[in-house]
Parts: sequence; structure tokens; C-alpha cells
Amino acid sequence: MKVLIIGGVAGGASAAARLRRVTEEAEIIMFERGEHISFANCGLPYYIGGTIKERQNLLVQTVEGMEGRFGIDVRVKSEITKIDRENKKVHVKNWGTNEQYEESYDYLILSPGAKPIKFPIPGIDSEHIFSLRSLEDTDNITDFIETEKPKKAVVVGGGFIGLEMVENLIDRGLDTSLVEALDQVMPPLDYEMAAIVQKHLKDKGAKLYLSDKAISFENQKVTLDSKKELDADLVILSIGVAPESDLAKEAGLDLGQRGTIKVNKYLQTSDPSIYAVGDVIEVEDLVNKAPTFIPLAGPANRQGRIAANNVGGQREVYHGSQGTSIAKVFDYTVAATGNSEKVLKKLGIKYCTSYTNSASHAGYFPGAIPMTVKTICDLKGKVLGAQIVGQKGVDKRIDVFATAIKAKMNVEDLEQLELAYAPPYSTAKDPVNVAGFVANNTLKGDMDIIHWHEIDSILGSERYSFVDVRTKEEFDNGHIENSVHIPIDEFRDNWQQIPKDKEIILICQTGLRSYLAGRLLAQKGYSDVKNLSGGYYIYHMATTEKKELSS
Amino acid sequence: MKVLIIGGVAGGASAAARLRRVTEEAEIIMFERGEHISFANCGLPYYIGGTIKERQNLLVQTVEGMEGRFGIDVRVKSEITKIDRENKKVHVKNWGTNEQYEESYDYLILSPGAKPIKFPIPGIDSEHIFSLRSLEDTDNITDFIETEKPKKAVVVGGGFIGLEMVENLIDRGLDTSLVEALDQVMPPLDYEMAAIVQKHLKDKGAKLYLSDKAISFENQKVTLDSKKELDADLVILSIGVAPESDLAKEAGLDLGQRGTIKVNKYLQTSDPSIYAVGDVIEVEDLVNKAPTFIPLAGPANRQGRIAANNVGGQREVYHGSQGTSIAKVFDYTVAATGNSEKVLKKLGIKYCTSYTNSASHAGYFPGAIPMTVKTICDLKGKVLGAQIVGQKGVDKRIDVFATAIKAKMNVEDLEQLELAYAPPYSTAKDPVNVAGFVANNTLKGDMDIIHWHEIDSILGSERYSFVDVRTKEEFDNGHIENSVHIPIDEFRDNWQQIPKDKEIILICQTGLRSYLAGRLLAQKGYSDVKNLSGGYYIYHMATTEKKELSS
Ligand SMILES: Cc1cc2nc3c(=O)[nH]c(=O)nc-3n(C[C@H](O)[C@H](O)[C@H](O)COP(=O)(O)OP(=O)(O)OC[C@H]3O[C@@H](n4cnc5c(N)ncnc54)[C@H](O)[C@@H]3O)c2cc1C
Ligand SMILES: Cc1cc2nc3c(=O)[nH]c(=O)nc-3n(C[C@H](O)[C@H](O)[C@H](O)COP(=O)(O)OP(=O)(O)OC[C@H]3O[C@@H](n4cnc5c(N)ncnc54)[C@H](O)[C@@H]3O)c2cc1C
Ligand SMILES: CC(C)(COP(=O)(O)OP(=O)(O)OC[C@H]1O[C@@H](n2cnc3c(N)ncnc32)[C@H](O)[C@@H]1OP(=O)(O)O)[C@@H](O)C(=O)NCCC(=O)NCCS
Ligand SMILES: CC(C)(COP(=O)(O)OP(=O)(O)OC[C@H]1O[C@@H](n2cnc3c(N)ncnc32)[C@H](O)[C@@H]1OP(=O)(O)O)[C@@H](O)C(=O)NCCC(=O)NCCS
Repeated sequence: MKVLIIGGVAGGASAAARLRRVTEEAEIIMFERGEHISFANCGLPYYIGGTIKERQNLLVQTVEGMEGRFGIDVRVKSEITKIDRENKKVHVKNWGTNEQYEESYDYLILSPGAKPIKFPIPGIDSEHIFSLRSLEDTDNITDFIETEKPKKAVVVGGGFIGLEMVENLIDRGLDTSLVEALDQVMPPLDYEMAAIVQKHLKDKGAKLYLSDKAISFENQKVTLDSKKELDADLVILSIGVAPESDLAKEAGLDLGQRGTIKVNKYLQTSDPSIYAVGDVIEVEDLVNKAPTFIPLAGPANRQGRIAANNVGGQREVYHGSQGTSIAKVFDYTVAATGNSEKVLKKLGIKYCTSYTNSASHAGYFPGAIPMTVKTICDLKGKVLGAQIVGQKGVDKRIDVFATAIKAKMNVEDLEQLELAYAPPYSTAKDPVNVAGFVANNTLKGDMDIIHWHEIDSILGSERYSFVDVRTKEEFDNGHIENSVHIPIDEFRDNWQQIPKDKEIILICQTGLRSYLAGRLLAQKGYSDVKNLSGGYYIYHMATTEKKELSS
Repeated sequence: MKVLIIGGVAGGASAAARLRRVTEEAEIIMFERGEHISFANCGLPYYIGGTIKERQNLLVQTVEGMEGRFGIDVRVKSEITKIDRENKKVHVKNWGTNEQYEESYDYLILSPGAKPIKFPIPGIDSEHIFSLRSLEDTDNITDFIETEKPKKAVVVGGGFIGLEMVENLIDRGLDTSLVEALDQVMPPLDYEMAAIVQKHLKDKGAKLYLSDKAISFENQKVTLDSKKELDADLVILSIGVAPESDLAKEAGLDLGQRGTIKVNKYLQTSDPSIYAVGDVIEVEDLVNKAPTFIPLAGPANRQGRIAANNVGGQREVYHGSQGTSIAKVFDYTVAATGNSEKVLKKLGIKYCTSYTNSASHAGYFPGAIPMTVKTICDLKGKVLGAQIVGQKGVDKRIDVFATAIKAKMNVEDLEQLELAYAPPYSTAKDPVNVAGFVANNTLKGDMDIIHWHEIDSILGSERYSFVDVRTKEEFDNGHIENSVHIPIDEFRDNWQQIPKDKEIILICQTGLRSYLAGRLLAQKGYSDVKNLSGGYYIYHMATTEKKELSS
């Protein structure tokens, strides 16, 4: 059996190594267009920023390692230029020797990845404009920084690579601006969760230009759609990636949306001799079952292993992707799994959301820091998604959510998860348990809620009475206009002041104390009581961003 | 409705707070024998050690808070001395006023907890001997340390509280010894995993006396069963806890094993008007379904909430406990969930174990530290338990395992978990994915394994050939006697040296490289090849401890 693998990094190298473990019989040739295989794409921003000091460390595996350890014929600087399905051959161009030749196959595994999107606007090919995908790109950027000593940088695109670059360029001392066409950074997050990240970015010195687009890069300036002009000695383009499916397309393989390659549940393309994995393929969304595009390293690695198994004669199924993602953004960790509210809304799927604010570990043990958790479930309680922003312990809770979603758990199951508790690690009721309580309370109607984005349109209306139950200090620090102030610890003696003929909106900082007040009122004959979900914190974060954006 | 709650800390206070949210109609009285309610039991060792600086911080909720916020009648220094089920009354003794009175109830919720076990040996009541359960105990210990300035401490009992005390006493500068009757610390762990912890304890200066017992505490000496004598200015007894079920027993409620109170799935005792929660009850083991005793704060808190719901008219089921536990032991985090090998063996349940050694996050990003993971599954692959010892990211992975066990996942599901990956947080294949791969490979027989404890009995036998595939440096640092040394990167050229007529035991540091070698040999016609599971690391850790113990 002769197996050719196109692409020698996450999916390709994983497939190659696994295939060798599955069979010693196969002849395995791995082609990589670039100079390096198995490099740490995900580490590149941190090498540019200086956190990763040794370039060498970015090479997870080398050509010699792959050949010696696995007996794989690794050919770098070797691009596949054509797939000849009829004759089961590929055309290879060796960029080192300029030689061209053909190589036959029994099976082909495609893992060519995805390339940074570029758009044709004036100046796009200037020397100070870079994208970041390969080690070569990385070397070019670091060389440019070292020799040209740029002072001002503009990052175009506020996804996770863009934000990692903002952080790393600021770490290197550059005055850095971010331009993003959407009204928020981090597309996997919903608006109000992204707002928390945006505030932090600004606190760390990044300048944000949201709902705006770069339309020209001429004369060391980035001109925006809004007519604003930003000085830029260095520009990083990170507006997203597009699957590298030209080869597959030319070969007539079935394609999915956005130019992805279509595969079946065994990761086989429309040609049974050709498998495809990684950033180039269309996958099924584990939550909503729609086809989607999730260009991330975890799925690529695991898909590479599955494709190898199947080439080796097994019938392993890839069960779809759920889009679990995470990024460090300065002191914050930002993570999501499953579907966002945005996605569900677009698909017309009914859902329920709630927010909680939980300490990373027991408050009485030093170093505990709160995180904000958004939980999304369907109307029967099945967990559909979660988003978390905070400084510590975010990665842990998103992984618990990811596992729960994979297991099709509902919010009631979250309540009863038995997670590890000792003071340095968590609270006796873990943040995920609490997320379960609150989501389930909302779902069961134990507490009606109102969301931050529904508030501004009812402000000033006579129908509503806003009651803020925080401390005086918190209240004085900022509150929703015309709120009545009754601190929670005085609430039992003062709730009678609250009018019974109005719709009551209860407010505290995060939703917990107002929930307590709400439970009391609901049982005292108040028929229309709503808790501001996520409290003043989410309201303030989101509306402040909205205001800044529109000003 | 009048509800009395006995015990005002984890389970009791949780039940009280929740019950008020469920109903404003109930009269709720919470009785606590001690002076404080809602204190952080779990933080006490860290207050003694000085990590938690403010005593105030240990009070999660106060009597005033509970009364003001929740309208609960809180009576401290008030012990229930008798439950009169016939008349639905309890007898109360107020230790402040010495008053005694009766209080009637419609429902009773028992959350009296568990008390430290004491055993009647000479000197047990000396003034320098303490147990740790309450804030009063904590004050007594800190006062003693401050006034008596003890230099040498002995901790008796190597469970998690014992180890936390060892760490905290060493933090306070005391020369500290640990005495433990079992041959290992940390009973939830299996022997070889505990061995890693023991090595670390010794590295940090603790002196361990395992498989030994304190038999007398006279004359500032602790005399051990082995006749050894340890100087001790301060002794902490932490040999376990026993449920405080005397009241329940006298009242004729059905009891379970070890004196626990039996409850049904609604947490109702044999008297339908009486619920019981927390350390005092018997629970069903989620994994093996046997009745068990799991005195931990997470379950206590969640049970308190469920009992309150049910007293309030709901029918919520408690689904059993799985024994998820965690402890900080100096630089290490030690965690377990589900069943250990020991427990399964005792119950005669068939299982399969495997070890992996994974970096806490991407190796190329600074600060990654390996952790050791033990995965236990049944013969169909259902995950039954996991144990993890390491320095970083242990709490995250144990929580993913805990969630997977709760969801009845099998090791194949672990392979496909889509966990959050970015270099500061994990590896593209998360340690839990890798644990899934390895467990599943073992289960499917892709790689036969041999365990550390099976090695010594076959050493020297002609039937076996040991092949070590580590680097020369690793090999020279220590290896199993008579091993042949063929480094993995030279293995493809040298495997022919290995005899075909022997059983081959392959060895590397953690099991990964020897697995690669094993896959090669298996396909080259070697019929009997076994991988040393967990590698030289586990073998060395466990056997070194065994040797030290027997010397
Ligand atoms: C800067 C950066 C940061 C990232 N950070 C993260 C992160 O934190 N977490 C995460 O999950 N993901 C991250 N990713 C995404 C992750 O790297 C990809 O999802 C993953 O590498 C995809 O694997 P792949 O095998 O599909 O493609 P790649 O790893 O990109 O490998 C494809 C290879 O195929 C080669 N190739 C393409 N066409 C041909 C051809 N015709 N002939 C020969 N060779 C060819 C390419 O040169 C390329 O090297 C990051 C990506 C980048 C660029
Ligand atoms: C030092 C220490 C460290 C710990 N660390 C952890 C940890 O890290 N993680 C973890 O999960 N668990 C830990 N625990 C265990 C955890 O604290 C218990 O599981 C939990 O508190 C049990 O809750 P409970 O309500 O059943 O009992 P408790 O919290 O002990 O409360 C019971 C209360 O009832 C009172 N009481 C008893 N009888 C009567 C009566 N007749 N009348 C009136 N009052 C009565 C007692 O005074 C007591 O205050 C630790 C415990 C200790 C002591
Ligand atoms: C490194 C790379 C070549 C893959 O190599 P790999 O051999 O599949 O991966 P690992 O070294 O982690 O080894 C995993 C194998 O060892 C086995 N293993 C791991 N620990 C083990 C242990 N203690 N005992 C036995 N087996 C073990 C696993 O089961 C797995 O084998 P399997 O797939 O046959 O089941 C590929 O992932 C790569 O190129 N990565 C870098 C690029 C990249 O991923 N970029 C994106 C992220 S930055
Ligand atoms: C503190 C203590 C009294 C319990 O109080 P509690 O009110 O049940 O717990 P919390 O303050 O965490 O509040 C949880 C409630 O707020 C709700 N809540 C939390 N965040 C919320 C938010 N953002 N929006 C709305 N509701 C929220 C939860 O749903 C839950 O209510 P529910 O049970 O009615 O669903 C009790 O746990 C205790 O005494 N603890 C200390 C002792 C102890 O546990 N020791 C062992 C460990 S050290």
C-alpha cells in the first residue's frame, strides 16, 4: 500500500505518524510545500512577542525525526500541483531543485490547511504588510521588527490570531491598533461577552476600531472606511482563513460551503481513495448538525489520526466539531464551546441564556478572581453552548462545558456534576454547578429574567420600576437611571415600598442578590418581577461599548 | 410549615438558604452546636499555615447575614440532644445559657457532619494533641503554636487533611513527621500514584512513617507500633472521620455502614419527615453502585440544596457520589475521581488501567510541566476512574474525567473530546485525549502491556528480554537490570538484534517511545511483546517506595 500525504503539519504529520503505527507495510510519503514540517503554528505569535525565546522550540518534530522514528519519506519544499485521480497520481514540484515529477498512490490524505485571506485593496502588497501562517512568515515579521524598528502597528481582524498579535506586538513595545469590520472582537463570543474583552484590550493600551474596515494601505497609513487614517509602520492581516482547496477543486472532488472539501463521517472525500482532514474540510457542527468550518488544531490532529486509521482498514467515525476555542488576551482568558446566541438566532433555534459570575476558587483562599460565564441551553435544558471570560480557571470550566455538550447533558446535569473541590482550585459549588442552577432556575421559570439589551428601550417607561439591591457604594459608583435603591440586607424590611402595580426589574452587580430579592417578591404576591440577567456588570459592559461605538 | 435544621455549616446552611428561596412560608430554624455557622472548614489548614491571613475570611456567612438576608432563625451554641420522632420535637441545649427546651417540627433536616476519629491509647488526651474540624480547634492550634512555639510536629493520618496539615506545619517552620497505618498516603489513590506524592513530601522535608501506627503519646513522644519513637511538641490527629449519627441512632433511624444514616434517593431517612445530608449519610457510589461514605464539601452543599427542594415539595433525586477529590500537596496537585484499582479489585469488578504522562500545556510555551495520569476503565471501555498527580492543570483534567464518568463515557469518547487548545492552556491533543488513546489501545489489544508490579518477579528469568529504548543519558541514569539498550531513534535499524524466541518487555520513560517500538515489533512477527505501562518512571517511583518501606 502506498499512501501520499499532502501537508506536513498538524493534520498531515499526525496522520503520517499514526499510519505508521497502524501498519509497517505501507509506503508513506509526506509532502510539504514549505521548508518545515510539524511546526507549532499556534506558537508563532508568542515567538514574535518574545514569550517563546527559541525558534528551535517551534519545531515539534523534524524531517529527520519523522524519517528515523517513523520510517516516513518526508519531502519538504515539495508542492503537489495536481491530483490526477484517474491515474491515481499526483504531480510534484520540488521548489529546491525546480524538478517536477509524478508520484502514484493507493490512498491520498489531504491536509493542506487554510490560508490567510487577502483582499485586493490599494497597497495590500506593500512590504510592511504581513499575514501569519508559516515559520517563514514569522521570520519575515521578526526580521522586519528587528531591522525596521516599527513604532506603530495596525492589526486588521479581531479574531483570536489578531488578538494574540495585538498582545504580542504591544509586548514588543509597538503602539498597536486593531481594526475589525464587525462590531465586536472574537466572533465565537456574543456581543456582551466580547465587550468585556474589548475593555481589557483598551486598558492594556490597544486602540480599537470596530465596525470599520481597512480600505487602503498606502503611504504607511491605513485608511478606514470611516475615513479615519492610522499610521502604520507594520500591518498584520488576520481577517480569517480560507481552505486551501484549489487542488481538490481542480481534481473535481465535491466541495462544501466556503470552498471547503466535503467528507463523509469517515473523513473520506467524494473519491473513496482520498481522505481529507484539518482546516480544509467541512465538518458537521456537533450541536446544530449544520455543515461548518472549524479551522483549529485539536480537530486537525484528531482527524489526522482517524483518517490514518481508516486508510489502515478501520472504520472510525469522526463525530463532528463543536468549536471549542480559547485564547489568552493579556491577563484574560477568553473561551467558548458549542453554539453562540448569534449562531442559534441565525439558525432559528430557540434557546435560553443566563450569566453567572463566579470566583475561580474559594474566595477565602488568596488569589481568587471572578469570571463571567454565559450558559446557553435549548428550551428543554440541553446545553448548547458556553462562553467564559476571566483571568483564572476559565480553561477548566470551558473544558467541563465542552465535555458536557459532547455528552448531551442538560443544565440539570450540570447542577449535579461532582467536580474537584479544595480551596486552591474551586468552590464547593463549582462555577459550572452554579451555571447549572441559574440556567435551570431561568428555564423552570423560578425567576423571570430580562436581558441587558432589553433595558434601554424601556428606560423611562411608567410601566416599569427598577430596584437596585446593591450596597450604597456600588450604587453610587453607577446605576441604571431612576432605580430605587434598597440594599439586599435591608430588603426583608423594606420590600413593601415596591409598587405592586408595576413590572419590577431587579438589579444587582451580577444577578445573585437580585435573584434573592426576586424570589422574595415573587412569593409576596408580586406578579411581574424580572431579574436583570448578569446584573449591572453585563449591562454596563455591553452598553458602554455600544455607546463608544456609536460615538 | 416549620423546618428545623441541625448543623449550620456546609449542608445545613446550604439547605437553609435554599429552602428560603423555595418558600417564604416556612419557619426555618437552624441549630448549630458551635459558635460559628457557615465557616470554611476546608480553609482551616491554610489559616494555620498562614496562607489565609484573616480569620474573618473563614466566615463565609454570619448569623446576622443569614438572619437578615434569608429571615432564618439561627441559633448557635445550641445543640440538639434528642430527636423525639413520635411528637415531632427536638430537645435543645443552649450552651451559652445552659437552658434546655423543646422545639417542634414538621420537617427536620440533619446535617451534623462527621467528627474526627479518636482512639483510646495512652496520652491521647494530652494538651499538645489536636484534631481539626472547627474554628475552635483552629484557634486552639494556632494559639498553641504561638504560645508554646513547638519545634517538632507529628501528624497521624495521611489522608488529604493530614497532608494539608503536614504542608502547613512545614510552612510554619515545624519539623514535621507523618505516621500512616497504610503503606501509602492518600487513600483515594493507588499505590504507585501515591508513591509520586510521597517522594515529593520527602523532598519537601516531611518524614514519612508508613505501614506504622501511633500506639502511645506519652512524654512528648509518639511511640509507633514499630517501636520507633518520634519527638512531638505538637500532634495532629487526622486518621479519618466518623459520621455524627448518635442522635439519629437513638431516634431509631435506619443506619448504613460505618454508622452513616441511610437515605433514599430523595435524601429522606427512614422517617419521611426527616431528611439527612452531608458527611453523615451513606450515598450510592455512582460507579459501582455500592453504598459508600464520601465526606466532602461539594456533595454536602449540593445535597443540602436537594433536601431543601424536596422539603419544599419537589421530588429531586440525588444521583450518587463519585468521590471526586483533590488536594494541594506543596507544589503538587493530587486528584482522583471515580473508583481506584484497589476498590475495583476488592469488589471483584474487572478493569483495565493505563498511564500517560502529559505536559500541562504545549511544551514550546514556557512553564509546561508534565503530569501523570492513571486511567481506569471496564473491559468494554467505560471510564471507571482516574487519578492525576502533577503540578499544573491537574484540576482541569480531573474535572473533565469527572464529567466523563458522570456521563458514562467510554475511553473512545475521551479520544474525541474537543477540549480548548491554545499554547498557554493545553496541547492540541489534550492529556485527556491521550489518556483515551492509550487506554483504548490497551483495551483493543493494539499493544499488550505489563504493569510495574509484575516486573520484579520476572527479573532474571530467561523467558524474558528487556529492551530499553530511551536515550543513553536516561538509560545511564537508571534502568531495569539486564535491559538491552536500543534508543528509539536507532530502533528501525536495530530491532533485528532482538531475539524472537523470548517475551519482549519494552521500556521507556513513560511508555510512549516503547509503544512505538512495540508497534513495530508486533508487525515484524514478534508474537509476545509487552509495553511497560507508565514506563520506567512509574516502575521506579513505586518500587523505590516499596524498597524504602521494607528497609
Ligand atoms: C498564528 C496561528 C495561531 C494559531 N493558534 C491556534 C490555537 O491557539 N489553537 C488552535 O486550535 N489552532 C490554532 N491555529 C490553527 C491551527 O494551526 C490549524 O487549525 C492547524 O494547523 C490546521 O492543521 P492542517 O493540517 O489542516 O493545516 P496546517 O497545519 O496549516 O498544515 C498544512 C500544510 O500543508 C502545506 N500545503 C498546503 N498545500 C500544499 C500542497 N499543495 N503541497 C504540499 N504542501 C501543501 C502547507 O504548506 C502547510 O504547511 C493557529 C494558526 C495560526 C496560523
Ligand atoms: C480541615 C478540613 C479540611 C477539609 N477540606 C476539604 C476540602 O478541601 N474539600 C472538600 O470537599 N471537603 C473538605 N473537608 C470536608 C468538608 O468540610 C465536609 O465534607 C463538609 O463540611 C460536610 O458538611 P456537613 O454539613 O455534613 O458537616 P459540617 O460542615 O461539619 O457541619 C456540621 C455542623 O453540625 C454541627 N452539629 C453536629 N451535631 C449537632 C447537634 N446535635 N446539634 C447542633 N449542631 C450539631 C457541628 O457543630 C457542625 O458545625 C474538610 C474538612 C475539614 C475538617
Ligand atoms: C507531533 C506530530 C508529528 C504527531 O505525532 P504523534 O506521534 O501522533 O503524537 P504524540 O507524540 O503525541 O504521540 C501520540 C501517540 O503516543 C501514544 N502515547 C502517548 N503517551 C503514551 C504512553 N504513556 N504510553 C503509551 N503510548 C502513549 C498515543 O496513544 C499516540 O499513539 P496512537 O495515536 O497510536 O494511539 C504532529 O502532531 C505534529 O506535527 N504536531 C505539530 C504541528 C501541530 O500540531 N500544529 C498545531 C498545533 S501548534
Ligand atoms: C454560603 C452558604 C450559606 C450557601 O449559601 P447559598 O445562598 O446557597 O449559596 P450562594 O451564595 O453561592 O448562592 C447560590 C444561589 O444563588 C444563585 N445565583 C448565583 N449566581 C447567580 C446569578 N449570577 N444570577 C442569579 N442567581 C445566581 C444560585 O442559583 C443559587 O440559588 P439557588 O440555590 O436558589 O438556585 C453555605 O454554602 C455555607 O455555609 N458555606 C460555607 C460552609 C461550607 O460550605 N464549608 C465547606 C466548604 S469550605
